[in-house]
Amino acid sequence: MTASDGDEPNGLRRTHRVTISDLARRLQISKASVSYALNGRAGVSDETRQRVLDLAEELGFHPNSAAVALSASRTRTIGIVIARDPALISTEAFYMRTLVGIEQYLNEVDASLLLRLTGEQGEDLDVLRRWSRQGRVDGFILFDEHDNDPRIPLLKELGIPCVVVSSNAPDDQAGRLISSPTETVTLLLDHLAALGHRDIAHISGPFMFVHERLRVQTLRELAADRGMTVRQLEGSYRYDDGAALTRQLLTGPNPPTAIVLGNDLMAVAALRVAIDLGTPVPGQVSIVAWDDSPLCELAHPGITAVDQKTMERGRAAADLLFRVAAGQDDIHEQAPAGELRARASSGPAAHR
Amino acid sequence: MTASDGDEPNGLRRTHRVTISDLARRLQISKASVSYALNGRAGVSDETRQRVLDLAEELGFHPNSAAVALSASRTRTIGIVIARDPALISTEAFYMRTLVGIEQYLNEVDASLLLRLTGEQGEDLDVLRRWSRQGRVDGFILFDEHDNDPRIPLLKELGIPCVVVSSNAPDDQAGRLISSPTETVTLLLDHLAALGHRDIAHISGPFMFVHERLRVQTLRELAADRGMTVRQLEGSYRYDDGAALTRQLLTGPNPPTAIVLGNDLMAVAALRVAIDLGTPVPGQVSIVAWDDSPLCELAHPGITAVDQKTMERGRAAADLLFRVAAGQDDIHEQAPAGELRARASSGPAAHR
Repeated sequence: MTASDGDEPNGLRRTHRVTISDLARRLQISKASVSYALNGRAGVSDETRQRVLDLAEELGFHPNSAAVALSASRTRTIGIVIARDPALISTEAFYMRTLVGIEQYLNEVDASLLLRLTGEQGEDLDVLRRWSRQGRVDGFILFDEHDNDPRIPLLKELGIPCVVVSSNAPDDQAGRLISSPTETVTLLLDHLAALGHRDIAHISGPFMFVHERLRVQTLRELAADRGMTVRQLEGSYRYDDGAALTRQLLTGPNPPTAIVLGNDLMAVAALRVAIDLGTPVPGQVSIVAWDDSPLCELAHPGITAVDQKTMERGRAAADLLFRVAAGQDDIHEQAPAGELRARASSGPAAHR
Repeated sequence: MTASDGDEPNGLRRTHRVTISDLARRLQISKASVSYALNGRAGVSDETRQRVLDLAEELGFHPNSAAVALSASRTRTIGIVIARDPALISTEAFYMRTLVGIEQYLNEVDASLLLRLTGEQGEDLDVLRRWSRQGRVDGFILFDEHDNDPRIPLLKELGIPCVVVSSNAPDDQAGRLISSPTETVTLLLDHLAALGHRDIAHISGPFMFVHERLRVQTLRELAADRGMTVRQLEGSYRYDDGAALTRQLLTGPNPPTAIVLGNDLMAVAALRVAIDLGTPVPGQVSIVAWDDSPLCELAHPGITAVDQKTMERGRAAADLLFRVAAGQDDIHEQAPAGELRARASSGPAAHR
């Protein structure tokens, strides 16, 4: 699938209908054998190779997509290096769901993931440099973009491709899977506006992340378009912080009628503080979260959140990386669209 | 640290006090340089090597531990292949916390993780075989041991070391990091017995896992020792299943006064069902979980659970694997001890 023929009108690439797994199942051979056959690599007999190619044609499997990219791959391995507090990584569902999506894709095409979690920023640069020089990976998927992120020029200098899971699309030659905040902000604000909310608050993640500052800016603009005011507070993604900032809002003058929280952990914290303060949810304050997760789903009341299609996003990032590494020109792609999961934590505004 | 000098009386190995990170920080050089110096590998000057060795001696860093093991390592990479439903992996905190623990260790010794999540059992064997033959890893950490688990003889045949994160210790030449269920069952039953519970139920995970059957057997034996009866039901680790089985218990004849759930997701489900049925928790039924997690901590009421020290266990498994791979004789080790986190979901039994 080339970048153009797979694009939907809304910019969303669809997943392939026929996969290597389908071919393997039909032929009762391993996916590795299918992959070897499609990629012209040793490891299968000529007869098997022909059976694979025949079935691929019959079923309309497009070997001009990932298969071509993978045939150009030196290592069939991608690298991910995450520099974040390990405790936070293990509490938030985001990373694990993303990794699972990436792994689902890699498993289908018989490729591998080399993973490193460094506790501190800076250490990640060492790892990117060494894995690149050692030729261990075809490229990297990068998360949590910072201002003037040093990883992007480093990888450019090293000549190693990357895909940034990103909120913006500067012209820096990095591959990008782009989730514009406009979409999520629109889902959240339309939901709250329809419920009569006019005075809302947003407790974000740290402003050091590009995507958090874009969220703040987009919320301000789209709230103004709808005649809503939005107070913005910088949080840390941590439970304690979500709790303290929510307490500050709800016990201060003119509490907002709805609070948007930047992640699931802070949303659960906000819900708990509201209940502990005797502030009815959603009767007095609605609580909504940027990212859906089991914590939001299993909270009581359940917390309204945007399902960011995190696993699909992981799949799409891995797929894009192999195509970028194979030299595809179009290095920017839209991430799968999110969907609002309306639950009991949001309801009509207390004051109109 | 050899297997003997690091053992505590209770069988728990302690973590090293001085790490490669400490040496790197003190010398203001990278951890990779420290590791190269300690392991006699190229990449550092003779002068730096001497400074590293001098400081290691001064601080009592024991290069006869992981460093020796790592110097024997061909790839400085370990493999993990998990065959489980991806949706479940991303919902349960267990895997991510274990991976984070493993990664913390690997980051300190500058080693890497090659990770594969295969959706189906059987596919994992293919991956183990190929990575072994391609010499991509020094060894594997295995989870979720089955009866007559085919992975263990396969790796033995391939001559690749492994560490099974395990509940038992058969004499099959596999390395094992052992969490005996006796410890957790003792913590849970002593807690419930002290609260006067005599008639309890246990909703386990699937019996296809060795550790689940050992839990069932241990619960039966230790409950009998305490004069308690325990009804055992086989669950699936899934929310829906935990909910259905809890409903069955609470609406049936002679409901138990306490329910032990095999994972966090089923425990949250049990709590929700009890609340929905109007059964006071813990007034009428106490809910306790085998594994602690943010879901247990953030539930309301908070769910009593055993903190299995999952991150520490991950670290210990990675450390043991490198030592086993380097030829250490003692290939069985006790996992770090768990601790009970008593919360509001457990209280005095309704009926004595």
